Amino acid sequence: MAFERTYGEIPGYPPGSTFKNRDELADSQVHRPNQAGICGGKDGAESIVVSGGYVDDEDYGTEIVYTGQGGNDPATKRQIADQQLTRGNLGLARSQIDGNPVRVIRGAGGDPKYSPKAGLRYDGLFRVVDHWHDTGKDGFQIWRYRLVALESADPPPAGTLGATGPAARTEATIQRLVRSTAVANKVKRLHEHKCQVCGIQLATPAGPYAEAAHIRALGKPHNGPDVASNVLCLCPNDHLLFDTGAIYIEADGTVRQAGTAAELGKLRLIHGHSVDWAQLAYHREHHQP
Amino acid sequence: MAFERTYGEIPGYPPGSTFKNRDELADSQVHRPNQAGICGGKDGAESIVVSGGYVDDEDYGTEIVYTGQGGNDPATKRQIADQQLTRGNLGLARSQIDGNPVRVIRGAGGDPKYSPKAGLRYDGLFRVVDHWHDTGKDGFQIWRYRLVALESADPPPAGTLGATGPAARTEATIQRLVRSTAVANKVKRLHEHKCQVCGIQLATPAGPYAEAAHIRALGKPHNGPDVASNVLCLCPNDHLLFDTGAIYIEADGTVRQAGTAAELGKLRLIHGHSVDWAQLAYHREHHQP
Repeated sequence: MAFERTYGEIPGYPPGSTFKNRDELADSQVHRPNQAGICGGKDGAESIVVSGGYVDDEDYGTEIVYTGQGGNDPATKRQIADQQLTRGNLGLARSQIDGNPVRVIRGAGGDPKYSPKAGLRYDGLFRVVDHWHDTGKDGFQIWRYRLVALESADPPPAGTLGATGPAARTEATIQRLVRSTAVANKVKRLHEHKCQVCGIQLATPAGPYAEAAHIRALGKPHNGPDVASNVLCLCPNDHLLFDTGAIYIEADGTVRQAGTAAELGKLRLIHGHSVDWAQLAYHREHHQP
Repeated sequence: MAFERTYGEIPGYPPGSTFKNRDELADSQVHRPNQAGICGGKDGAESIVVSGGYVDDEDYGTEIVYTGQGGNDPATKRQIADQQLTRGNLGLARSQIDGNPVRVIRGAGGDPKYSPKAGLRYDGLFRVVDHWHDTGKDGFQIWRYRLVALESADPPPAGTLGATGPAARTEATIQRLVRSTAVANKVKRLHEHKCQVCGIQLATPAGPYAEAAHIRALGKPHNGPDVASNVLCLCPNDHLLFDTGAIYIEADGTVRQAGTAAELGKLRLIHGHSVDWAQLAYHREHHQP
């Protein structure tokens, strides 16, 4: 790398800092490019601008479903071509797996509920918690990213719970987390904590360990069901590979490596735990680059 | 198992519910044993009582450093023998790796800052985030557990950051998280994301993936330093095995399996990343059962 990226806040520009235009924003280094919505490359992404340039963006304040860059006609703001997992899009995926925070800048033109009336505003650090692709409103492939404000709460450990909750948990939220853990525990116990992809059973002094991977993620915008048939029992390595789309599972149970399509074996099935094949199709459709 | 454990809240007993004595508490099912401080076994622990029975307990309100059971003279409250990772102690470790919540009941006799003046009070659900052993104030081995209130915040993903922060993050806390991620990223890049234990480099569509494992954990009560020499680059599976004490690393770099002491290979070292061997000794001393 020719330079080190700056993750985190830029001294002198706390959340709430405002900018008249993109030139002023670029000068501050809070978001360096003059036009692009994502400041990033294959080594990671450090900042994004949310300003209504993409019809598929969704803004919920402390959570944002953000559209990747490319394939967009700036005049009409419509998608006119497929997006690829390259440049800034790859950078946001990289920042997710590295756990690097992303500076979020909102501009006039974004959702009026959360955006400034004029100019641009730095709204603090967010963490990328998910990425996948979808067919956008205009019929082309888009890459999508779910970002959650750092000030709100970190997502729960990936191994245990798929949903993220706000920091001030209501009692209902806590009971939901507990139920979700119960589903996860049931599936892991049925498989005796053996990974359904590689068969390993990790032995620890506290007993065997495995993780419950939701095939279709819980929560916005996937809204997968929190039931045993939407859960796989995986070792942490295969959980990571499955969640990032590095491996996928075909309709006949063949586990394949993304890109090469190399066969890695068959999904291990047992009596008492039915897998929902429609959710595995959803996973293939949304995570294969 | 002869019965299913009940994790989470007991209907009719919200946080703040009070009990005159242990019999009334046991009748409510919030904590079933009449005497033991931990309700649990090898399949998990569902509740604990914190009431000043162990000299090594530390109560910080939303965080508790709890002492395991056994080896204790109830008359003097002093330790008179080593504790083992069995029964309730094993149960709390199991609840950590399963992500199951633990009901916490405080009783008169505990830290006066957080405990009821008389009787017992149910104080809500906590998550076990760490366990290790130590030499207690009385010179015997004790098992220790760090519990964090669910209402406060979930710990950050294990792979990225070792410290937990309160839900309402101050700017200083956020900057600390960002710095911690920078240290982690540096170590992972130096190792080209290859695991220092097994050598695997997990390939994902967003690039290679590894995790930064703190050898001596950050934060209370270990207070490990957030520097590259206190970090190993590990795959998620070996990270889990290292953190749970399932594997340990000897002074000559030999990686061994806990219990059997079987040799699993040598820690992979590279120029540019010095490992602090004193921290690896600390890990051995506190995580080997």
